[in-house]
Amino acid sequence: MIRERIDRLRKLMKREGIDLYLIPTADFHQSEYVGHYFKCREFLSGFTGSAGSLIVTKEEACLFTDGRYHIQAERELKDSGIHLFRCGEDNIPTEEEYAQVYMKSHPVMGFDGRVVSAHFVEEFLKNTGLSKENIRADKDLAGELWQNRPERSANEIYPLDHGQTGESTENKLMCIRKRIKEVGADMHIIASLDDIAWIFNLRGSDVEYNPVFLSYAVITEEEAYLYVQRQAVGEELQKYLKEQHIQYREYDNIYEEIKQFSQGKAVLLDKKSINYRLYDGLEGARLIFEMNPSTRMKAVKNPVEIENTKKAHLKDGVAVTRFIHYIKKHAGTGINEYEAQKYLDGLRKDTEGCLGLSFETISAYEENGAMMHYSAPKKNSARLEKKGFLLVDSGGQYREGTTDVTRTIALGELSEDRKKYYTLTLMGMLRLMNAKFLEGCTGRNLDILARGPLWEHGVDYRCGTGHGVGHILNVHEGPNGIRWVQRKGLEEVPLEPGMITTDEPGVYFENAYGIRIENELLCVKDEKNLWGQFLKFECLTFVPIEPEAVDTAYMEVGDVELLNQYQQQVYEKISPYMTKEEQIWLREYTKPLKK
Amino acid sequence: MIRERIDRLRKLMKREGIDLYLIPTADFHQSEYVGHYFKCREFLSGFTGSAGSLIVTKEEACLFTDGRYHIQAERELKDSGIHLFRCGEDNIPTEEEYAQVYMKSHPVMGFDGRVVSAHFVEEFLKNTGLSKENIRADKDLAGELWQNRPERSANEIYPLDHGQTGESTENKLMCIRKRIKEVGADMHIIASLDDIAWIFNLRGSDVEYNPVFLSYAVITEEEAYLYVQRQAVGEELQKYLKEQHIQYREYDNIYEEIKQFSQGKAVLLDKKSINYRLYDGLEGARLIFEMNPSTRMKAVKNPVEIENTKKAHLKDGVAVTRFIHYIKKHAGTGINEYEAQKYLDGLRKDTEGCLGLSFETISAYEENGAMMHYSAPKKNSARLEKKGFLLVDSGGQYREGTTDVTRTIALGELSEDRKKYYTLTLMGMLRLMNAKFLEGCTGRNLDILARGPLWEHGVDYRCGTGHGVGHILNVHEGPNGIRWVQRKGLEEVPLEPGMITTDEPGVYFENAYGIRIENELLCVKDEKNLWGQFLKFECLTFVPIEPEAVDTAYMEVGDVELLNQYQQQVYEKISPYMTKEEQIWLREYTKPLKK
Repeated sequence: MIRERIDRLRKLMKREGIDLYLIPTADFHQSEYVGHYFKCREFLSGFTGSAGSLIVTKEEACLFTDGRYHIQAERELKDSGIHLFRCGEDNIPTEEEYAQVYMKSHPVMGFDGRVVSAHFVEEFLKNTGLSKENIRADKDLAGELWQNRPERSANEIYPLDHGQTGESTENKLMCIRKRIKEVGADMHIIASLDDIAWIFNLRGSDVEYNPVFLSYAVITEEEAYLYVQRQAVGEELQKYLKEQHIQYREYDNIYEEIKQFSQGKAVLLDKKSINYRLYDGLEGARLIFEMNPSTRMKAVKNPVEIENTKKAHLKDGVAVTRFIHYIKKHAGTGINEYEAQKYLDGLRKDTEGCLGLSFETISAYEENGAMMHYSAPKKNSARLEKKGFLLVDSGGQYREGTTDVTRTIALGELSEDRKKYYTLTLMGMLRLMNAKFLEGCTGRNLDILARGPLWEHGVDYRCGTGHGVGHILNVHEGPNGIRWVQRKGLEEVPLEPGMITTDEPGVYFENAYGIRIENELLCVKDEKNLWGQFLKFECLTFVPIEPEAVDTAYMEVGDVELLNQYQQQVYEKISPYMTKEEQIWLREYTKPLKK
Repeated sequence: MIRERIDRLRKLMKREGIDLYLIPTADFHQSEYVGHYFKCREFLSGFTGSAGSLIVTKEEACLFTDGRYHIQAERELKDSGIHLFRCGEDNIPTEEEYAQVYMKSHPVMGFDGRVVSAHFVEEFLKNTGLSKENIRADKDLAGELWQNRPERSANEIYPLDHGQTGESTENKLMCIRKRIKEVGADMHIIASLDDIAWIFNLRGSDVEYNPVFLSYAVITEEEAYLYVQRQAVGEELQKYLKEQHIQYREYDNIYEEIKQFSQGKAVLLDKKSINYRLYDGLEGARLIFEMNPSTRMKAVKNPVEIENTKKAHLKDGVAVTRFIHYIKKHAGTGINEYEAQKYLDGLRKDTEGCLGLSFETISAYEENGAMMHYSAPKKNSARLEKKGFLLVDSGGQYREGTTDVTRTIALGELSEDRKKYYTLTLMGMLRLMNAKFLEGCTGRNLDILARGPLWEHGVDYRCGTGHGVGHILNVHEGPNGIRWVQRKGLEEVPLEPGMITTDEPGVYFENAYGIRIENELLCVKDEKNLWGQFLKFECLTFVPIEPEAVDTAYMEVGDVELLNQYQQQVYEKISPYMTKEEQIWLREYTKPLKK
């Protein structure tokens, strides 16, 4: 089936005179996760991961994806004839690098200009020395051959309460307009969905788990234009837009309207989130590039968001802790990964104020845990035996905020090496969580605190240590993060008080098992003295660590103290919400360990 | 005296129509340390530190210097009327930033175009929006009013043996020519003295402690031109240049000759080390900018250099260890900082193969240790009592290599806080020294290993943790280094096997005491596995740590183990060269500590 689709694509490429066709995983907004309508790469390759690009040439079809998906892609691409490029490993080119080489002899590249960023195209042309003439960006060939393509989602958009956001749209617009003025621009165009949702205090459901809605926004000194799909605008939104003096515009019309809007104007925009076709329409404007001002603003949570987020984490911690108790009891009774996942999802959804999940729960037993973004199949998912590890990465969307937590649970007996690597992962998680550092530090300065204990034993994980988290919004939001190598195209920013970042080191042994332990950390101020302003983290996540997987022989006394402190806090915060039986278990589960 | 000099400078500025005159600490080669002839900034300000810039305007005279020199500058500028800018502290502008603001209303800046880098001028013009019209770069006003200025040094240049360098000039030139070709250039101009000394396997003595010679070099596909002062060329050099097919050119003629040489050519150069006047003469050329290829090449030591360096460190360690024994015995007998310094210098100079010191020995008792680059005065230097800390930072130039080591020695009783901060500093030094990390890490990834224990207690040091070290060359050489904030204008490069970097965390309490512990680390390969190539450090420095200053209560068991291992190694390496009495002392001094 996949082979046939690729063949049909090649025929369309021939018709258009295209040598190389690129299908990234993106919507018109460079979103990390996309709605079903936009899953062309999955349709054409069969690979279901949330990141990766497909390149098709006359000779080859190639999928490029990062370390989180290597194992999964290997499985899903089997027999498809598609060549997997395990990006991040030695001497493996990225899709850009591959295309650069191929286009030396085959100079015409095609893609849908709406799903590729302006930044990508510009960099690509600069690096290859090719020109716009070498690009066909007006054809969605994948869409053309996709029969039964799902409808483009246009779910109703709704406003949040002030009690949820803590800052009015009016105020947010004022701050953005200040920045527009500072850089000497007349207007600002925004295409990133999380930015738009945050600025306008609106949410939707056009992307699974991410409460965003398909939209563009244009902000001028006087006006704010919101481009959304007509079907998504209900009465509540109409009223809200009127009250807030926000102009409604029809989503698909932006490509035409922006040409006139921007004529002769100075336009502030983020080349990395604006798609190429939109960018191409700004020929009559003077362009000023920087990261959308709202991206940094929304990363620094305000006091209302922080207080709410703490409440969300407490409720979420209760659900996950209850799940751990349940699953440790029921392992070996026939329950499988998928049923475990549904049980946890049920606990969360039954929680007061829960709006849904913040991403698809990963419930991965033993070797499946080695796939960072595993998805348990509905049928024939792995049975949970009374031994080994169940890795559960999950999170909720609550009226009060967004959560993301991972625990690796011992279902019974564990091998010595499982304990060793669990302990090393835990040490990294705890050391980063307890770091104290000077203002100005970025995630690159801190990453080794989490990664160091594993590196010491010659093991790494092929992903960052942590990502920023949105507020009632996307579970992955920049610009903050903890990574030792800055990902290409991502800006490296200092950690600031109010930013929330995950702390999730891990170990992934293909065909054996995976371990990940993840807490969310709020950056807060520590002492200020003659050396400067010190910062630290306040932990937001309260879910117990697996004591049966800890071997204190690997830990320093200080690590054991950090662990015991944390377990004590978990007990204090969570036990009041537990049943008597659960309380007794949790007391034992969180009791101090000795070195 | 200083006030009068500044007044005379202001008169010259008025004559030339200059609003702001900049006097950096530099020679024509952007050297970190400069010969006496070039010390205009010191002449005009009275500040003797090795880094800092003076800006004089009609209204103000301002000295800008970094954290290493704040305390010293404060003292030396007293009563001079010069305003100290403690760069690196909150809201303190750099000299560029100060000039940018001042020039908004006073648009003419002057400086000697030979002592300011092309990069500085270009950045400055870009940031201010000013043009070349706003710059007077042809006048050395400081030189004009400096009567009795020292002669420009032109000491004899000499070649090194192949047994010292491990790589022929022919081979080095071949590698550089390869790079010239790769970037599409016809020629390469080099102004940095350490690069030139390394490429041509030559040494000189035009800058105190730095065995370099005033020179420029031009490398084309066929030829290599060396611009040096005629007085510096003896018979040995003449013969060597002839053998090596290197063309001799007169030093001061480069400004004229380069205009013709470069006409219509593509020239590879490093904007940061080429001075502005030279750069200005390249108008007829197409310029290609990158770090001098030799800078990275010379940072990666070859096997001969590494083996030799180890020998140099062993001899150096013997001298410093002997000094520690001596000074601990003689503290309280009337000996002062300066005499201690001379005693150590004597031990080093008596060592076989020692060519001199690699920098002026810092011998700083108690509060003087808080000045990172303290220089003990010949007269009335502090008496060494039988208590407190003596900080000694020193190094030698040997036929086999260059060394740099710091020890903080307990002369008797120590307060609890001295022990606390010594121990935290030591923990940082040991943890960085024992790091294991993946290829690709830069010093920014690792710095927190050294700085973390101090940050944990709310203390910082206002400098990097470590710098690269040259081979029979400058004690400070990039591009490698260990810093948490990348210094502006410095390139951030991954650590590579063969690079030598210092590891020198410290604590500096103004008017109280200073602590610094410094070892040199050679980057070497560790295991290579599916995660990639791991790297680690091999310690080159063997000088005992002060056990009387260690309080193991602050340490983890792992830290104590690292310390004991190191002390054991020191004993094994150094004791064979000690007298019987010294051996007995060293055995006791390095004996394992308990937690």
